[in-house]
Amino acid sequence: MVSTLKRWLIGRPLKSTELGEQRLNKKKALAILSSDALSSVAYGPEQILLVLITISAAAFWYSIPIGMGVLVLLLALILSYRQIIFAYPHGGGAYVVSKQNLGTYPGLIAGGSLLVDYILTVAVSVSAGTDAITSAFPALHAHTVSIAVVFVILITILNLRGLTESASILAYPVYLFVLALFILIGAGLYNILTGGVSPGLHAPIGTPVAGISLFLLLRAFASGSSALTGVEAISNAIPNFKDPAPNNAAKTLMAMGAILALLFSGIVFLAYYYGIVPKAEVTVVSQIAEQTFGRNFMYFFIQGTTALILILAANTGYSAFPLLAVNLAKDKFIPRMFTVRGDRLGYSNGIIILGFLSILLILASKGQTEELIPLYAVGVFIPFTLSQTGMMIKWIRQKPEGWVLKLIINTTGALISFTVTMMFFLTKLAQVWPVFVFLPLIVYLFNRIKKHYEAVSEQLRLTTCEPAVPIEGNVVILPVAGLTHVVEHSLNYAKSLSADQIIAVFVPFEREAGAQFEEKWSKWQPDVRLVTLHSPYRSIIQPLSKFIDVVQRKASESHYQVTVIIPQFIPKKGWHNILHNQTSFMIRAHLLYRKDVIVTTVPYHLKK
Amino acid sequence: MVSTLKRWLIGRPLKSTELGEQRLNKKKALAILSSDALSSVAYGPEQILLVLITISAAAFWYSIPIGMGVLVLLLALILSYRQIIFAYPHGGGAYVVSKQNLGTYPGLIAGGSLLVDYILTVAVSVSAGTDAITSAFPALHAHTVSIAVVFVILITILNLRGLTESASILAYPVYLFVLALFILIGAGLYNILTGGVSPGLHAPIGTPVAGISLFLLLRAFASGSSALTGVEAISNAIPNFKDPAPNNAAKTLMAMGAILALLFSGIVFLAYYYGIVPKAEVTVVSQIAEQTFGRNFMYFFIQGTTALILILAANTGYSAFPLLAVNLAKDKFIPRMFTVRGDRLGYSNGIIILGFLSILLILASKGQTEELIPLYAVGVFIPFTLSQTGMMIKWIRQKPEGWVLKLIINTTGALISFTVTMMFFLTKLAQVWPVFVFLPLIVYLFNRIKKHYEAVSEQLRLTTCEPAVPIEGNVVILPVAGLTHVVEHSLNYAKSLSADQIIAVFVPFEREAGAQFEEKWSKWQPDVRLVTLHSPYRSIIQPLSKFIDVVQRKASESHYQVTVIIPQFIPKKGWHNILHNQTSFMIRAHLLYRKDVIVTTVPYHLKK
Repeated sequence: MVSTLKRWLIGRPLKSTELGEQRLNKKKALAILSSDALSSVAYGPEQILLVLITISAAAFWYSIPIGMGVLVLLLALILSYRQIIFAYPHGGGAYVVSKQNLGTYPGLIAGGSLLVDYILTVAVSVSAGTDAITSAFPALHAHTVSIAVVFVILITILNLRGLTESASILAYPVYLFVLALFILIGAGLYNILTGGVSPGLHAPIGTPVAGISLFLLLRAFASGSSALTGVEAISNAIPNFKDPAPNNAAKTLMAMGAILALLFSGIVFLAYYYGIVPKAEVTVVSQIAEQTFGRNFMYFFIQGTTALILILAANTGYSAFPLLAVNLAKDKFIPRMFTVRGDRLGYSNGIIILGFLSILLILASKGQTEELIPLYAVGVFIPFTLSQTGMMIKWIRQKPEGWVLKLIINTTGALISFTVTMMFFLTKLAQVWPVFVFLPLIVYLFNRIKKHYEAVSEQLRLTTCEPAVPIEGNVVILPVAGLTHVVEHSLNYAKSLSADQIIAVFVPFEREAGAQFEEKWSKWQPDVRLVTLHSPYRSIIQPLSKFIDVVQRKASESHYQVTVIIPQFIPKKGWHNILHNQTSFMIRAHLLYRKDVIVTTVPYHLKK
Repeated sequence: MVSTLKRWLIGRPLKSTELGEQRLNKKKALAILSSDALSSVAYGPEQILLVLITISAAAFWYSIPIGMGVLVLLLALILSYRQIIFAYPHGGGAYVVSKQNLGTYPGLIAGGSLLVDYILTVAVSVSAGTDAITSAFPALHAHTVSIAVVFVILITILNLRGLTESASILAYPVYLFVLALFILIGAGLYNILTGGVSPGLHAPIGTPVAGISLFLLLRAFASGSSALTGVEAISNAIPNFKDPAPNNAAKTLMAMGAILALLFSGIVFLAYYYGIVPKAEVTVVSQIAEQTFGRNFMYFFIQGTTALILILAANTGYSAFPLLAVNLAKDKFIPRMFTVRGDRLGYSNGIIILGFLSILLILASKGQTEELIPLYAVGVFIPFTLSQTGMMIKWIRQKPEGWVLKLIINTTGALISFTVTMMFFLTKLAQVWPVFVFLPLIVYLFNRIKKHYEAVSEQLRLTTCEPAVPIEGNVVILPVAGLTHVVEHSLNYAKSLSADQIIAVFVPFEREAGAQFEEKWSKWQPDVRLVTLHSPYRSIIQPLSKFIDVVQRKASESHYQVTVIIPQFIPKKGWHNILHNQTSFMIRAHLLYRKDVIVTTVPYHLKK
């Protein structure tokens, strides 16, 4: 039944050879990988204005130069990541680039930072989208958390079904959102050019403003650059592209950069020209839409697609997290299970864990995730900085053709990213301090896991260790609880193994029971040695365990192997299990974990 | 650590031979087994008045004849149970008596009824005691449920420590309560005799009352007889007494009956003479105490010991439930685990499950358990009726010396119990109907469990079935995941078993991996056959399972036994388990439950 439900939700399993068919063309890839970056247009410009308003509305003209700064940063990032795509055609990403050029620790910092960040992406963007929906339908407000959780579950299922299927569903909302914003910007500019908007709504650029400071401007710039989160997604996900993957990825990246630049500058300019003042209940984009169209169909179209793309931005996390996890798991820094492809060829463990942790985060923050945005931005800019620095080192070391230009591009990217990161630490420490807790913790964990795996493979390797201890003979211990068919079958099996010695063990709780059993046994199996272990404390495991120790010590002297044969009932129905004492299960677990004996389970399938 | 905590809470384990030392002398037995019955004095008389007040205060004089009726019932029950004690010296109880004399189904109804009733006892009495405490300290009122749960946990731990230890602690409050009530009754009577109480407070006996009906009087009688719950506890618990157990139990029973009769009639009489009117906030006993002593030390002493004995009444359930469960489990009507004595020789599974279910009931009813009292009373009077009827049948069949008197005593007991039961059904159906749901359900469950155990022992018995299938030879299947020490060790073991055939199985997810492995294998182990099962859907269990089916089919034709040898890592630390894919565990579970093959686990203990 579970398996039927799984089939229905996830679809039939796919063969490994069908992997190529699951890859993305440019159009779908743009939709699936850029929803995070594009959705930030819905809140990025607003973040700038929210800082400037702390001075006065007259300071709003600064949003134009700050917006230009963000565009320069965007250009630098896009060009840098384009170089990373070609330099690391198998999927670059900050982790791989930092690790290869800067060393393990910078790599782990970049990787750990991104891993946590993708969880934040999912939680933050789904909560934001849910907020947009519940603002439109206030009756749903009490259920914000439940709705957000349901969305995460739906997106998780879509991703478990596989890349192409989720891309097909997700492409429409993304393109509709882009279309809606282009119409909005176009209509807004048309209004301005035809004189439909009073030029007196905004202070002219260059108006002197009292109280403005470099710190405040930097803070506004840092806030605005949160619109650039998600830019790295494409370079992480090159393996998901159809061949030639790097070329397709680079083209998609450039297309995304161009769209993002147009939308961002359009919204910043309209907000400035209209003299929009950010309000708690109405977003900046919503105010622009209302002033441009009034509250008609277009207004609701823009609001609807915005809500949708905010929720879908979570999907970027689902594309990037499992691939990053695979890279980390291949290097043995996180559990191996992340490298296993599920039925539908996606890395299902990564997808499920991402969904699970995001839901936990939404529940823990009760859906109020706005406070997490700066933390999330820092979590992006730290790996940005590290990967750009890594690329600088690469060009300096390898000096390929045209390396100076490449070095200049990545150096610019590194410097700007570093500046933005520092700005976050300087201006928003109250919100970003957790990064100093979880980054060291996560890097420590990565190292512990790696050490364990290395220790294991060291112990398993055939060449390094001494040859295996030879097995000269076998001693079989058979705990018996009565004279039954199960015991008979197990004994026959023990005899068939041509063991050198078979010892049946009986553990009575009372003296009389032991004597009685010994008598019956000697009649039934006179040639098999029976040992009776009296147990005054009514434990079966303790006396058995001591006895096995004694046998083991003697056996190991002559290189004999000790095997314990345990009969186990297998009831026909699940609930029958509570009717049996599970003694065999407990003996087996105890022996395997505590002793160095081989444990053989002889199942006895009950027929009714 | 868990084990240290357990030692500290429960104490050191006891040897089976120390069982005698855990038995109770009469003084302790009276305390431990009669707290339920004696505590009912605190609410029984009040129940009568609560029914009479629905007519008028003038009807209160009826409490005197009704109280006498209850005393007659008490006398009949005590005498009947005294006969049961001597007739069933190994622990009678309604279940055993009904089953032996009336048949299995009456026995199961009595047993099931009592089993549920003991859970009610614990929940109801602990809640009542907690209410008494939170009435005294209103600040605690918000925490009633938590306090009740803590009390249940404490009583559970006391009982897990063992009988004598809990008896020592529990004896003081019980005797203090008895002492307190004797002082109260004595002082009250002294006041009346010395003329300190106005004789005008109560209507004289015989005053005609308008609106009184037989139905109402019966209802009042049924309510009053709820003071007799707990009378059966001693006859259930004879095995807990020091030798000679039946004599000691009978003496304890008579002592309890005498104390109960004195306290009950004293309270009923004082309540009548003082003209006490039951109030929601203040109990009848509390009103009598206040009128007798005023609000001084004696008043609080009586209130305190009453609260304490109500909580300790739960302990009667803890003495009786595990013993009843043992009897039912010995007859295979409930899971066998109830017959296992724990470290301290108590039947710890019964004690723990009783505690757990009572806590569930307290949580489910949010501590408001008053509504459960009639249900609880019916659950006592059904087995009362059945066991007395059983004794009637026994005397008629066996006709021992003096059987006519014995028959008369038990017949009286049976008739009165039956009448009380019927009264509950007639007058309180709204509260007692659940008995018609859970009794059939529980009897059905008992039968299902019994059938399962019978089917199992039928299948296991050596004499009834055909001889076991002989094992002519062995085929060993060894799933391998790489060329490691673990595989080498497992292979050496397989070879040492002198199996007729050893097949190594490798399940690659990709074609190339399979070919590579085959090449390496043929160099390393040229004489061991390797089968490569290509798995396009990346499942290990499915192809392996199919392959085992094929091998099994061939093997069974020539009576060969198939053994699957599975190497399993045992990591050094618990958390390491999540770093390994648990494939061996899943293969093992699948094979044991689905196939008829023997599964051998070769542990490989990682050293770091």
